[in-house]
Order: sequence, then structure tokens, then C-alpha cells
Amino acid sequence: MDFDYSDKVKDLQKRVSAFMETNVYANEQVYHEQTEEGGRWCVPQVMEDIKAKAREADLWNLFLPESDLGAGLTNTEYAPLCEIMGRSHIGPEAFNCSAPDTGNMEVLVRYGSDEHKEEWLKPLLAGDIRSGFAMTEPAVASSDATNIEGSITRDGNDSYLINSTKWWTSGAMDPRCKILIFMGKTDPDAGRYEQQSMILVPLDTPGVTVKRHLPVFGYDHAPHGHAEIEFKDVRVPAANLLLGEGRGFEIAQGRLGPGRIHHCMRLIGQAERALEAMCRRAKERVAFGKPIAQQGVVMEVIADSRMEIDQARLLTLRAAHM
Amino acid sequence: MDFDYSDKVKDLQKRVSAFMETNVYANEQVYHEQTEEGGRWCVPQVMEDIKAKAREADLWNLFLPESDLGAGLTNTEYAPLCEIMGRSHIGPEAFNCSAPDTGNMEVLVRYGSDEHKEEWLKPLLAGDIRSGFAMTEPAVASSDATNIEGSITRDGNDSYLINSTKWWTSGAMDPRCKILIFMGKTDPDAGRYEQQSMILVPLDTPGVTVKRHLPVFGYDHAPHGHAEIEFKDVRVPAANLLLGEGRGFEIAQGRLGPGRIHHCMRLIGQAERALEAMCRRAKERVAFGKPIAQQGVVMEVIADSRMEIDQARLLTLRAAHM
Amino acid sequence: MDFDYSDKVKDLQKRVSAFMETNVYANEQVYHEQTEEGGRWCVPQVMEDIKAKAREADLWNLFLPESDLGAGLTNTEYAPLCEIMGRSHIGPEAFNCSAPDTGNMEVLVRYGSDEHKEEWLKPLLAGDIRSGFAMTEPAVASSDATNIEGSITRDGNDSYLINSTKWWTSGAMDPRCKILIFMGKTDPDAGRYEQQSMILVPLDTPGVTVKRHLPVFGYDHAPHGHAEIEFKDVRVPAANLLLGEGRGFEIAQGRLGPGRIHHCMRLIGQAERALEAMCRRAKERVAFGKPIAQQGVVMEVIADSRMEIDQARLLTLRAAHM
Amino acid sequence: MDFDYSDKVKDLQKRVSAFMETNVYANEQVYHEQTEEGGRWCVPQVMEDIKAKAREADLWNLFLPESDLGAGLTNTEYAPLCEIMGRSHIGPEAFNCSAPDTGNMEVLVRYGSDEHKEEWLKPLLAGDIRSGFAMTEPAVASSDATNIEGSITRDGNDSYLINSTKWWTSGAMDPRCKILIFMGKTDPDAGRYEQQSMILVPLDTPGVTVKRHLPVFGYDHAPHGHAEIEFKDVRVPAANLLLGEGRGFEIAQGRLGPGRIHHCMRLIGQAERALEAMCRRAKERVAFGKPIAQQGVVMEVIADSRMEIDQARLLTLRAAHM
Ligand SMILES: Cc1cc2nc3c(=O)[nH]c(=O)nc-3n(C[C@H](O)[C@H](O)[C@H](O)COP(=O)(O)OP(=O)(O)OC[C@H]3O[C@@H](n4cnc5c(N)ncnc54)[C@H](O)[C@@H]3O)c2cc1C
Ligand SMILES: Cc1cc2nc3c(=O)[nH]c(=O)nc-3n(C[C@H](O)[C@H](O)[C@H](O)COP(=O)(O)OP(=O)(O)OC[C@H]3O[C@@H](n4cnc5c(N)ncnc54)[C@H](O)[C@@H]3O)c2cc1C
Ligand SMILES: Cc1cc2nc3c(=O)[nH]c(=O)nc-3n(C[C@H](O)[C@H](O)[C@H](O)COP(=O)(O)OP(=O)(O)OC[C@H]3O[C@@H](n4cnc5c(N)ncnc54)[C@H](O)[C@@H]3O)c2cc1C
Ligand SMILES: Cc1cc2nc3c(=O)[nH]c(=O)nc-3n(C[C@H](O)[C@H](O)[C@H](O)COP(=O)(O)OP(=O)(O)OC[C@H]3O[C@@H](n4cnc5c(N)ncnc54)[C@H](O)[C@@H]3O)c2cc1C
Repeated sequence: MDFDYSDKVKDLQKRVSAFMETNVYANEQVYHEQTEEGGRWCVPQVMEDIKAKAREADLWNLFLPESDLGAGLTNTEYAPLCEIMGRSHIGPEAFNCSAPDTGNMEVLVRYGSDEHKEEWLKPLLAGDIRSGFAMTEPAVASSDATNIEGSITRDGNDSYLINSTKWWTSGAMDPRCKILIFMGKTDPDAGRYEQQSMILVPLDTPGVTVKRHLPVFGYDHAPHGHAEIEFKDVRVPAANLLLGEGRGFEIAQGRLGPGRIHHCMRLIGQAERALEAMCRRAKERVAFGKPIAQQGVVMEVIADSRMEIDQARLLTLRAAHM
Repeated sequence: MDFDYSDKVKDLQKRVSAFMETNVYANEQVYHEQTEEGGRWCVPQVMEDIKAKAREADLWNLFLPESDLGAGLTNTEYAPLCEIMGRSHIGPEAFNCSAPDTGNMEVLVRYGSDEHKEEWLKPLLAGDIRSGFAMTEPAVASSDATNIEGSITRDGNDSYLINSTKWWTSGAMDPRCKILIFMGKTDPDAGRYEQQSMILVPLDTPGVTVKRHLPVFGYDHAPHGHAEIEFKDVRVPAANLLLGEGRGFEIAQGRLGPGRIHHCMRLIGQAERALEAMCRRAKERVAFGKPIAQQGVVMEVIADSRMEIDQARLLTLRAAHM
Repeated sequence: MDFDYSDKVKDLQKRVSAFMETNVYANEQVYHEQTEEGGRWCVPQVMEDIKAKAREADLWNLFLPESDLGAGLTNTEYAPLCEIMGRSHIGPEAFNCSAPDTGNMEVLVRYGSDEHKEEWLKPLLAGDIRSGFAMTEPAVASSDATNIEGSITRDGNDSYLINSTKWWTSGAMDPRCKILIFMGKTDPDAGRYEQQSMILVPLDTPGVTVKRHLPVFGYDHAPHGHAEIEFKDVRVPAANLLLGEGRGFEIAQGRLGPGRIHHCMRLIGQAERALEAMCRRAKERVAFGKPIAQQGVVMEVIADSRMEIDQARLLTLRAAHM
Repeated sequence: MDFDYSDKVKDLQKRVSAFMETNVYANEQVYHEQTEEGGRWCVPQVMEDIKAKAREADLWNLFLPESDLGAGLTNTEYAPLCEIMGRSHIGPEAFNCSAPDTGNMEVLVRYGSDEHKEEWLKPLLAGDIRSGFAMTEPAVASSDATNIEGSITRDGNDSYLINSTKWWTSGAMDPRCKILIFMGKTDPDAGRYEQQSMILVPLDTPGVTVKRHLPVFGYDHAPHGHAEIEFKDVRVPAANLLLGEGRGFEIAQGRLGPGRIHHCMRLIGQAERALEAMCRRAKERVAFGKPIAQQGVVMEVIADSRMEIDQARLLTLRAAHM
């Protein structure tokens, strides 16, 4: 278990951090304003500008293990970069490293056909379009993925018919979102773990309707958002099926693993930044005769936070390593 | 310490509960829609309709201890009603029992002159206007109220000049909000607890500018809201001063005490309703082969919640009693 | 839910408290020394002396609801007294109100025959002997009482044969302990809740061997103690069976309910006393330039303890009331 | 931050683990029995036997960074071994790696004169005698070490006179304990951090009286124990002073740092072993129809413990590394 970052990683850490300083933090306010002005479900121009710079700086698609397409980093190497990008809620997208696109791109790299790659992977890697992952359904307890009941029915030789209501499809509110990876049952009578399949559904296919967005603790996460989507007799080519009927679980396993590490590391980045803000504020703010940073209770909160964040990071890196 | 509710209270509990069933819960969705349609910072008509019914049902101003104006309940008697009203976020206002108006009305009853009562207390008691309490300031740690530095300067014989920036003035976003109780320093050189005073500031006084609303965890609490307000050379009649110069702390003490009990009881009502929803959902939702209500972890969460809510209620009632 | 103590209870609270001050706290050290000198598993004379005084003061058997034998208090009335007695680990016994005797006496009052009462209840009520309750077994998970597998076999017309190993039989180490209420199966083939019975087993019956005591977090709780007991072909008269074969669960239900309230209230008494000690110490002890009572962290600990104890008491009283 | 163990460490881990299996765990019961038989404050022969084997196996004094005397390990290298030894409460002593001797030996290595080393360090390294560290005093809050007020007064040219009451002097109950490092004030008028000094006090010096042992949560930790010791006009040669007058803090700093890491790692070893026991038991124990290992609540407890222990280890290793 070697937590020492390699020179390659150290160099990337330095470059990503510098990029964050110069291009990301400073633009959070601009991003916010452009989203407000555009009516929230729009593409803030500033993001496209930052992305262009990141690509130029060769800080692009860092998540991809395959070296010809991405930075060729292992999960353990990528994790610490994830933390730095996660410090800003607009950070990951700037480097084309935001969920759910990263996971979706990995799926296409591993399980997509040449046609899938040409049509969807390429523009995703280029940051030109975005994507969604549609598994969770309102009707069933989706933490148990065997419950997912959206139907994918073979209809004739060359197409599938899809019917379902999905929700919490992150990113589907974004005007740039063009493609969904949809999970559902091709065979409800197969073995417990062979019923589910994954299939590509372009968002503009007739029968696909984004009904509304779901807020999280009052936040809409615009323009990204989390959508409720209706699929009504949605017909897609049979070739859109990934890997094969009944292999949805197999894909899901591979897809969700690294994503969990990434989520954790991004949140650790957020936590670090929050702790920095807390310390800064505590030193300035004077109550009951002295800066609150000198109150025992506040010192304890800060010390506990310091330890909790460090422990979360170490545990996550260890999981990435395993 | 008698926690048994009197017959009077029991009767009111029954009537308030019935009113909630008939008029409040059912209208939450309507309220939400009307707020949306009106652009959020509006008065949803449905609230005015419910208020009319509550007044008719003689369930009005229950918070007021003084029997000729309100229901004449002690704090201990009112607390359990507060819990019931608090079960809906539109409940308290329906009975003209919502913060900060309740606290402000109490201040006017106790410390207001006849003119103050005529001009402000009367329409507040009637539910025709609303009010705000402007103490907290962005510039200073306001949990230590001696820090509050907004200035109230005597200017000539019959007026005060007010300068300050306040924030978190709850309710000041509401179009019906007409009057603020403003706290600030009349004499920065007086003793630590004699510097502050309270004064009435009509919201339409020249120099008063509502700058923006502050969201809470992503929620705007519209149309109520929490405002940042600028006071620039705001001139009000000297008669607007409450109780006397340097007596702000004295008023604050009396004002905030009961309010704390009310806040707690309303939140306990919310918690009860959330627990009910959790139990209902846990019985329906099936994961990993059985309703999650039958999973030990979920049972433990429910049992813990049950105890925590009961303990919170008992402790609050005991505090009300003390 | 009336938490106001009646005059009767208030009077008893005063008298029990006074007795604690005069006779109990002051003798804790003596009790400790006499136990040490006697080799721990002895009867410290001071306890017998205090008991004599408590009987004289008519503070005796307060736990018993039946008025001709005890103080005739309801569970709700007795609970606050339990708290006061619990403040000292030698308190409850002083008033003949200590577990497991209280529960055992209740069982005998309710389910014992006249002979049982004459032989065992009388000396227990007099504080002359003590008793144990033998349910838990090392071999099975005893939190699920249906697991208890000690065998009680009818052997001829007038006796039962008992075989089992029990542990955690509290009080069985005490030289005064003369009688056990034993729980075991009379019919392993009966319905799930009709297999168990309870039977009286005098500790000096041949075949009963106290093997060792079990310490709790390093404490032996001498001379009370928690014993592991072997029962090997122990023969007792058939008349020793309580209530009837297969009715063990029925008795257990009634026995354990009030006991839980008593345990809680005694521990709340302990907690109060610990809090008092903490506050006293925190005011005296000076670290880093001031009494630690003035350190925010310590104040927070004290405030949290104050609330937690109050909430525990209120919840327990409410349970007693239900 | 490299958490990968070097080959040297890996080899030692394997050897220490094997030694624990063969010689330590199996002898815990023997150790316990011999202590009981010897009246607790005795030397169980089995420990001397194990120590002989550990020395033979060249697993001896692993804590010592200096390579000519010990294993020459850094703190980071020694920490994982500490965890393994800590799995048994008789583990550390078996390898001559138990507190407070390790810290005391480090002090003597660094700050002791040649005479000190000859007389005390040598037999300590050989495991022939044991030692204590006497800093904490009942009279003052000792978490603030500036409070320590034991007096060390120069008396004539060649001796110091010592007066004080110390408590919690770990190890001083052991018959093999021959030497104490005593901390106290040589100059109460010096600067805050220059008042304290450390001096060697042989336990058999006239005026040194071990008054009693202090139990921890009911455990006496015999034969080690934690002693209360009276020092009354205790005269020791001036040459016993370590490093120089007023340099007690300087020594304490160096002494306590590594010890904290060692304590943590030993406790992590204990926690691992407890978790193993919990898992084993949970799989065997059947309640309410299935092994409790299959109850959600128990699974959650186990999972939380797993994470907490891993996080504690990682944080401690990181601290050792810093
Ligand atoms: C911000 C956000 C973004 C999301 N993005 C996506 C997305 O892009 N694509 C997508 O498909 N989904 C997405 N989700 C959905 C997410 O994956 C699901 O919410 C999650 O899988 C849980 O499913 P559920 O909501 O149906 O809860 P349920 O499965 O109904 O679970 C309800 C509760 O029961 C508990 N529970 C379940 N089983 C047990 C058990 N055995 N023991 C004890 N407790 C149990 C759960 O922990 C939970 O608290 C997103 C969710 C959120 C909040
Ligand atoms: C939803 C909402 C509605 C509100 N409505 C109103 C309103 O209507 N009118 C109004 O005037 N105000 C209102 N407030 C403001 C509220 O009263 C203040 O936020 C509060 O008094 C704290 O002041 P502050 O925000 O300046 O925090 P600060 O005083 O800066 O405190 C910062 C932190 O330091 C901590 N702290 C302070 N002293 C100590 C100490 N001695 N030891 C340890 N920690 C300490 C605090 O607990 C807090 O966590 C509202 C706030 C909210 C969130
Ligand atoms: C100080 C003391 C005094 C006692 N005095 C007496 C006495 O006088 N007479 C007597 O008969 N007994 C006595 N007992 C024993 C006590 O009643 C038992 O310890 C208790 O019933 C638990 O049984 P067990 O020890 O067999 O644990 P087990 O039943 O083996 O339980 C092991 C663990 O599993 C957990 N568990 C069980 N079921 C579930 C579930 N469904 N979901 C999740 N977790 C679960 C339990 O909470 C526990 O943590 C005493 C115990 C103590 C500590
Ligand atoms: C098992 C055991 C073994 C020990 N072995 C040794 C030994 O070998 N040699 C030796 O010299 N000592 C030993 N000690 C003593 C130990 O070092 C002291 O107990 C410790 O330093 C605390 O000192 P105190 O007991 O005087 O507590 P105090 O200093 O009186 O502290 C009391 C409480 O106040 C808290 N407190 C202190 N300052 C603050 C603050 N600023 N803010 C908030 N809270 C504060 C503390 O955390 C503590 O809870 C041992 C103790 C134990 C329990």
C-alpha cells in the first residue's frame, strides 16, 4: 500500500491545482451569473471557454485509464486529482472529468462497438456532448438493482422497444445531453442476475420525454440537474444493446466501482475547501470578546474535521488501491 | 411538572388538528403552485382564504397570552398547539401564529404605545400586514448581540437617523411586510448592555432598501424569505423608539424566550410528520426480498427517531414549564 | 401524562433523600472496607444496620404495588424514588428495593402459592434472605428467550428433575441468597411460547453448584455478584412450579416490565450524582490558566449531560406512565 | 507518504506474528493463573520464559531506533510491529517493548550519562528490571504539565531533596520496578517552561513509599499497576539529574511523542483482535431464527468497526510518518 504519489501524479497535481487557481475558482461567480441569466437550464459560455483552456493545457480526460485516449492513470493515480477538481463544483466538468460522463465513457470504451464509439464516445471525449445513465425508477426500491423493471423488448429483427419511467437521471437536463445508457429487463424470466441489460437511447428518440427535474435539498444543480424521464414505446436499433442481453449487471459492476472512488475524492476536495473557509472565518469573527477560533468548542470542531477528512481520504485511497 | 393537557388545551388540540386536516395539508400543493405562478415573492390567495376560515373557526392568534386579544394560553398550553401547526410549513401562518410576527406582536403588546398599537398591532393581529425583526448584521458576529452596531442617532427633537446593513431579516421579502423592529446602538459609550435600543421602522421609509434574499440550504422560503436590508440615513419619528433608549436587551430577552419554545415545538411537529412518512414508505418499499421496514437497520432508525422526538418534546415542554 | 408528583410521592422523596444523606452516602466507604475485610463474598454488617434503620423509618419495600405488603405505589410513583436510591450503589438494598429480589418478590406475590409465600416471600420481604433469577445460559443466545434450553423434567408424581448451566445469575454469590427462580423447558415440543416454565430452586438443593462469578468491566459487584451455576440432576418438589407448565413466558413478561423502569431510574440517579461530581471538580480544577469549568469544551459536555439526563428521566417516566 | 512496508518490516511482521501465535496467545491463560496464584503483585514465571525465547529469536528491543542497541527501526517501521504485539496484553512485555520502559530507555539513551546507562539502561535493555515515569500529581491538573509542582531542591553540593505525591505511576507496583524518572520543579521562579526538571529516583531510596494502586475501570492491571507514591525528603545524588536543571519539558517532548504512536498502534491491535472475536461469535450465535451475523444491525456494527479501525491505523501511520 504505497500512498506516495509518483512523479507523474505530483506533476499533474501541481498542474491541475494551478489550473484551478487561474481558471476555475475565479469563474465560479461568472458561471453562476451566466446560469441565472440563461434561465438556469442553459450552457454557461464560461464553461466552454475553460474547457478549451484545459484541453490546450493537456489536462483533459484524466480519468481514462487507457493511455491512448486519456491520461493513462490508474484509479489510485487519478484519485488525488479528483480531489483537487472536486474543490469546485464546476471543476470536474472543466477537465471533462465529470459524472456521469466519465462512467459512461468507460462503458463505451470497454463494451461499445466501433459504431458506438464513433457516434457517441468521440464527441463525449471531445466534450462536445454530454450523457446520462438511466437506471433508478420511482416505482421500485432501486438500491436493489434486481428490482429495476423498465422493459426492453425485442421487436422484430432490428429494434428494441423500451417502456419505463426513470428518475434521478443526472445530467439529462443539460441541453448538451444527447445520449442515455438505459438499464432494464430484456428477460424477466431469466436468472436473478441475467434479466437486466443496458442499451443506448439517444435523448431525441420519439417517446422519450423529460418530465421534470428533481431538486436535492433545495438545489437544482442546474444546468446539470437530475431528471424524471418517461420512455413510451421508444424504438431503438437492436445494435444499440451493449455487450449482450442479460449482461446489464456485469456492466454495472465495472461502471460503478471506480465512480464511487471518484465521488468520494471529489467530496473530500469540497470538505477541504470548506475547512479552509471555516478556519479563515473563525480567525476573523469576534464573539464574546475574542475570535471564535480561540473558543475551545470551535477548536475541537476544527480538529475533528481535520482528522475526519484525513481519515476519509486515507480510507478512499486505500480502497482505490485494493 | 404537570404535562397533562387541560381540557381547554385538549379541546384546542382537537380543533386545530381537525382544521389542519380539512384546510391545511390539502392546500399545501395549491399554495406551492400559486407561489410558483406568482413568481414566488407574491401572496398566494389560498393562504388568505385559509386565514379567513381560521378566524371564523376562532382559531386565531392562539399564541397571545393576553386573554382579551388572543386565546389567553400560557406558554405551556400553547406549545402543544404549536407542534400541530408546525406539521405543515403553511400551518402557523394560517392561524396568524407565525414567526416573526408572533414575537413582534408580543413586543408591541408589552412595550408599544397606544399609537404603535393602533397603527401596527391592530393590522398584525388582523393578519392584514406582516412584520420583520432586524437585528443580525453581516459585519459582526451576531450570536453575541452586544456586537450589533447599527446606529440609531437622535437627530433634532423629533426624529432618529438610522444607518446599518442587516441580514437574515425573516419575512421582509413578503409583499405584506410593512413594519420592522430594528435593533441598534443609541449610545455606543453606555454600559455593555445599555447601548442597544429597538425602534419601529416602516418598510417604506425612504432609505430602506431590500437588497436580496438569502436562501437556506437551497430553499428561498418564498414568499416569506430572509432579507438583506440596507438602511441609509433612514429618518423615523422619535416616538417610534420602544420603551426607551438603551433598553433593547431588555426587550430582546422577553421577545426571544417564548419564541425558542415555539420554534422547537413547530420542528417537533415537522419531525413527527416526517417519521410518519418514513414509516409509511418503509412498509411499502421492497428491497432485497422484503419491505425495508423489516430490515433491522431501518427498524433501529425508526425506533431511535421515535425516542429522539419524544425526548425533544418532553424536554421542550419542561422548558416551557420552567 | 401527569409528571407532577403527588403529595404522597413528594413526602417519600423527601424522606428517602434525607435517609440517603444520613445513612447511605456516609456508609459507602464503610461498606467498601467491610467487604474488603470479609474477603468480598461476605455480608457487610453496615448494610444490615442501615436496613434496620430503613425499616424503622418505614422506608421499606417501597417497590411493592400491593398496599398491604409494601408502600402501595404505582410504578410511576415509585420511579422517582428509585432514582434517589440509585444514587448510591448500596442505596436500593438499604430499602429492600434491589434487583433481582424486587422482581422475584413480585412474582411470588402474584403467582406463588401460600406455601411459597410463607417459605420464601416472607423472609425476602423481611430482608432476611436474598434470591436469584436464573434464565440466561452460556450455550444459547439468551436475548431470544425462546432459546433457553435448561430442562425441567417431570419425574414421578411429585418432583421435577432439572439440568442446565446458567450464567449471569445476579445475586447468587451473596451468602444470604437462598432461592432461585429457574426458567427452563418443560415441553420442548410445545408451541414456541409454551415450552418454558418457571420453578423455585433452593440454592442448597443437591446438584446445584455455583461455579464462579462473572465480572462486569473488571468489577465483581461483590458481595452481590453474577454467578455461573451448574444444575445437575437437581430434584425439587413438583409444587415448586410456578403458575403451571408452559407459562414461563407469561410470568417473564410481567416480571421484566417494571424492572426495566427501575433499572433506568437507578442509573439516572447515578448519572445525576456523576454530573454533580463533574461540576464540582470542574470548578476546582485549574488547567491552562483557568478552572476547566470555564473551558468551552467542558461547558458543552456539562450542558449536553444535563439535557441527556433530563431527557432520559422524562422518557422513562413517560414509559412508566404508559 | 509511503505506507508500503519495507522487506525488513515485512519479515519482522511475519516473525513477530509467528512468535505471538506460538508463545504469546497460548500463554495468556497461564499468565492469568500465575498472577492469581502469586497474589497478583508478583512476576508470573511464564513471562520470563517467553522473554527468554523472544531474545533468542532476536525479537528484542524492537522499539529502539539506535541500531547498535535495538532493531534500528524508524517509528514508521516499528508502528506495524507494535500493532501485532498489542494484540495481547502480555505481548509488548514479551519483546521488552512495553511502556513505560520503552520511553524511559529512550530517555536514558539520549540524555543519560555513562553511569546512568551502566546502572539502569543496561538491565532495562536486558529485561532484568523495570521502571516508572512519575509526573502526574493528584493535587494539580496534570494535563497541563506546567502545573506539576513536586519539588526537587538542591541540598548541598551533591544531592537533591525531593518532596511530592505522584499518582498513576504505571508499572511501579511490579516487584521488578527499580527506578523512576521523576519530574518536578527545580526552580518555581524560572520561566513557564524552564521550571521543570527530570531526575532518577531508585525506588528503594528512603522516603519513597508506594501507597496504593489505582484501578482502571475496575481492572488492576496487575502485576504492572498504576501507583500512588509518596516522596518524603527523598535524597538522591545530584548526578541523577537528567540533562540539566529546567530541561524537563525538553525531555518530556521527545519522550511522549513516539509513545503516543505506540499506544495507538497497540490499541489498534486490540481492536482488530476484538473485531475478529466479534465476527466469529456473530456467525455462531443464533437469535430470532438466524445467526446474528445475518441481522442488518450487526452487519452495520461490523462494517463500521472495520472502517473505524482501518481509519485509525491509517491516521496513526500517517502521524508516525510526519
Ligand atoms: C443526487 C442524486 C443523483 C443520482 N443520479 C443517478 C443517476 O444518474 N442515474 C441513476 O440511475 N440513479 C441516480 N440516482 C439514484 C440513486 O442511485 C438511488 O437513489 C439509489 O440507488 C437508491 O435507490 P432508491 O432511491 O430507489 O431508494 P430505495 O432503494 O427505495 O431505498 C430506500 C432506503 O432503504 C434503504 N435500504 C435499502 N435496502 C436496505 C437494507 N437491506 N437494509 C437496510 N436499509 C436498506 C436505503 O439505504 C434507503 O435509505 C441519483 C440519486 C441522487 C440522490
Ligand atoms: C433561517 C434563519 C432565519 C433568521 N431570522 C432572523 C431574523 O428574523 N432576524 C434576525 O435579526 N436574525 C435572524 N437570523 C440570524 C440569526 O439570529 C443569526 O444567524 C445568529 O444569531 C448567529 O449570528 P451569526 O450568523 O452572525 O453567527 P456568528 O455570531 O458569526 O457565529 C458563527 C459561529 O460561531 C459560533 N460561536 C459564537 N460564539 C461562540 C462561543 N462563545 N463558543 C463557541 N462557538 C461560538 C456560533 O455558534 C456559530 O456557529 C436568522 C438566521 C437564519 C439561519
Ligand atoms: C450485569 C448483568 C446482569 C445480569 N443478570 C441476569 C440475571 O440476574 N438473570 C439472568 O437470567 N440473566 C442475567 N443477565 C443476562 C442478560 O439477560 C443477557 O446477557 C441478555 O439477555 C443477552 O443474552 P446473551 O448474553 O446470551 O446475548 P446474545 O443473546 O447472544 O446476544 C448477543 C448480541 O446479539 C445482539 N442481538 C440479538 N438479537 C439481535 C437482533 N435480532 N438484531 C440485532 N442484534 C441482535 C444482542 O443485542 C447482543 O449484543 C445479566 C447480564 C448482565 C450483563
Ligand atoms: C491508565 C493510566 C496510566 C497512566 N500512566 C501514567 C504514568 O505512567 N505516569 C504519569 O506521570 N502519568 C500517568 N497517567 C496520568 C495521565 O498522564 C493524566 O491522567 C493526564 O495527564 C491527565 O491529567 P489529570 O488526570 O490530572 O487530569 P486533569 O488535568 O485534571 O484534566 C481533567 C479533565 O479536564 C480536561 N481538560 C484539561 N484542559 C482542558 C482544556 N484546555 N479544555 C478542555 N478540557 C480540558 C481533560 O481532558 C480532562 O478530561 C496515567 C493515566 C492513566 C489513566
